[in-house]
Amino acid sequence: MYKLIRNEGTARRGELVTPHGTVQTPAFMNVATCGAIKGGLSALDLKELKCQVQLCNTYHLHLRPGDETVKKLGGLHRFTRWDGPILTDSGGFQVFSLAKLRNIQEEGVTFASHIDGHRIFMGPEESMRIQSNLASTIAMAFDECVENPAEYDYARKSCQRTVRWLYRCKAEMDRLNSLPDTINRKQMLWGINQGSTYEDLRIENMRQIRELDLDGYAIGGLAVGESTEEMYCIIEAVEPEMPKDKPRYLMGVGTPENILEAVKRGVDIFDCVMPSRNARHGHVFTWEGCRNLFNAKYTLDEAPLDESCDCPTCRDFSRAYIHHLFKSGEMLAMRLCVTHNIYFYNTLLERIRKSLDEGNFQEFYNNNIRKLDTRI
Amino acid sequence: MYKLIRNEGTARRGELVTPHGTVQTPAFMNVATCGAIKGGLSALDLKELKCQVQLCNTYHLHLRPGDETVKKLGGLHRFTRWDGPILTDSGGFQVFSLAKLRNIQEEGVTFASHIDGHRIFMGPEESMRIQSNLASTIAMAFDECVENPAEYDYARKSCQRTVRWLYRCKAEMDRLNSLPDTINRKQMLWGINQGSTYEDLRIENMRQIRELDLDGYAIGGLAVGESTEEMYCIIEAVEPEMPKDKPRYLMGVGTPENILEAVKRGVDIFDCVMPSRNARHGHVFTWEGCRNLFNAKYTLDEAPLDESCDCPTCRDFSRAYIHHLFKSGEMLAMRLCVTHNIYFYNTLLERIRKSLDEGNFQEFYNNNIRKLDTRI
Repeated sequence: MYKLIRNEGTARRGELVTPHGTVQTPAFMNVATCGAIKGGLSALDLKELKCQVQLCNTYHLHLRPGDETVKKLGGLHRFTRWDGPILTDSGGFQVFSLAKLRNIQEEGVTFASHIDGHRIFMGPEESMRIQSNLASTIAMAFDECVENPAEYDYARKSCQRTVRWLYRCKAEMDRLNSLPDTINRKQMLWGINQGSTYEDLRIENMRQIRELDLDGYAIGGLAVGESTEEMYCIIEAVEPEMPKDKPRYLMGVGTPENILEAVKRGVDIFDCVMPSRNARHGHVFTWEGCRNLFNAKYTLDEAPLDESCDCPTCRDFSRAYIHHLFKSGEMLAMRLCVTHNIYFYNTLLERIRKSLDEGNFQEFYNNNIRKLDTRI
Repeated sequence: MYKLIRNEGTARRGELVTPHGTVQTPAFMNVATCGAIKGGLSALDLKELKCQVQLCNTYHLHLRPGDETVKKLGGLHRFTRWDGPILTDSGGFQVFSLAKLRNIQEEGVTFASHIDGHRIFMGPEESMRIQSNLASTIAMAFDECVENPAEYDYARKSCQRTVRWLYRCKAEMDRLNSLPDTINRKQMLWGINQGSTYEDLRIENMRQIRELDLDGYAIGGLAVGESTEEMYCIIEAVEPEMPKDKPRYLMGVGTPENILEAVKRGVDIFDCVMPSRNARHGHVFTWEGCRNLFNAKYTLDEAPLDESCDCPTCRDFSRAYIHHLFKSGEMLAMRLCVTHNIYFYNTLLERIRKSLDEGNFQEFYNNNIRKLDTRI
């Protein structure tokens, strides 16, 4: 399903064909946690913001409205009105970050809902069943995401269990895809590389999981406490072990700079809540750096958020107006900034693809790496 | 500027020509308190929701971002990107409902800002200067809005002062419209009828203010504590005294039923926060009655909010999805419902106009008056 079109050094330009459409890579996935982008955007808005893939969270949707409800409503595509590819995470990350009182055993994890505290059990089979009910395009394997720094011994044991869980995920996904009432019987399963910040564990784990010949591979357990330098080192260590003919997804990353660095190191796909979360707090990304729209210097500034941007927000609204909306607590402030940031991220990835197509990614990297994360 | 096209009983079909466009009446004005419709809608969204006039609040904009800031930014049209007619209220209603520690004297009112408590003085001249800076199409006279029930004697004295204030408003507006750096030198001034629930005061006041031959007249001080029956009686008492060749605006009203009753009694223009405020709490208007989208019965309901509606929300999204978004606290829920309610109100007025054009308003009234405010 993945075709590598060309390389520039380790950086890859490719495309991923799915039953819900083709994704040009490198690509950014826009995060619709509960089935909607936070900040008041709908799936239909995403279309004009160059979004290729929507990511939804299994944990949140299992709790509310419930994956069986989503199945009765025809799956996530019909429910949210997004007709392109959807990736669901496994729920694992949220079980380990949001839920309380969790208890991990070989079988899976028992935890308390962060909404009402009720006890829930989730293991590899449950995660696959939930994601099958949600009917996403791509399901992620159920893994334990260990926070960094982690003890070597704990990371090693956790990794080994995650590999055993992956085999169970694969078996359950194959079974679910063979059932007549499964909504998306072509649901893909992607594996997740773990191993904390230990290169030997990462490499061993990658070698083990690639044996399953899955449809894609993610690097998980990064951007969870380690330095960005450590993160880049781990990507560099794992990348040579990743299949060349499968898409590579760096989970939960990151800033524009992180994305440029990771593309350079061979990553194809990204997701992050940063564009929408930062926007809701008045932080917008521009080609000159980051702005904070709460800043009083924008009171009389009639320029758009980014003078070189042609997003729906920059086409019509001024910094002065958006500054006023934030100060007044108007929801429109958030919607306009989320719209801009989502468009910015998708345009960043589009320009990265173009530079790879034209063989000048390194030049693009050099021109942008210093300024994109700068505060202006 | 106002042309009466036809009557059906006391109900009127007309049009109001302004420098910012023509308004077909009866019309509903969509309330953008701080320069944006609450619920994340922009001025550009209003265009596809059949909005003809935007109402902005003088009190709020004077406090934040400040009317002088708005003037420096070119006035409300340029600031908010709404290019149609804008009506600004006088600030009076908010001074008497939102502000603290107010002190009314002949000169005007001293009050404390509800945002930071600082002392502000506003009288007729100040209100006109602020509205001139905002550069709305229609400015409202500065009045005292007396809460109902009110003592007869207080209401009478307040009324008399409001008439004296109106003369000062007119003089100041004429002066401002003659200044070279005034943004909208064709700004209109509309007077406001007061008199609480006392028919004799209302009639006397209307006779006094119509002497000024203003561009339009509003009925103020209703929907502030009295019963709807009292409100209808006051409209019936005042209406014969209102000029036939001027638009009539019933301030801050109301439900679909209120609007039908008031159109029947000769009112042309309305404004109310109800469509957007109710929507933000999950209450939507439909042609069958009102729904509460928090209701669990919508969990698996794939119908649109209103099966006969072709608004952007009803074209694409299900009750089940919107119910889920409300339960999850997603901003998109509010935006979708505000979009629907604004469209519903503007469509209601459009259908009222059509029924007047076709001479069957009474039939339209009979078919709808009982069900529109019913909970379903």
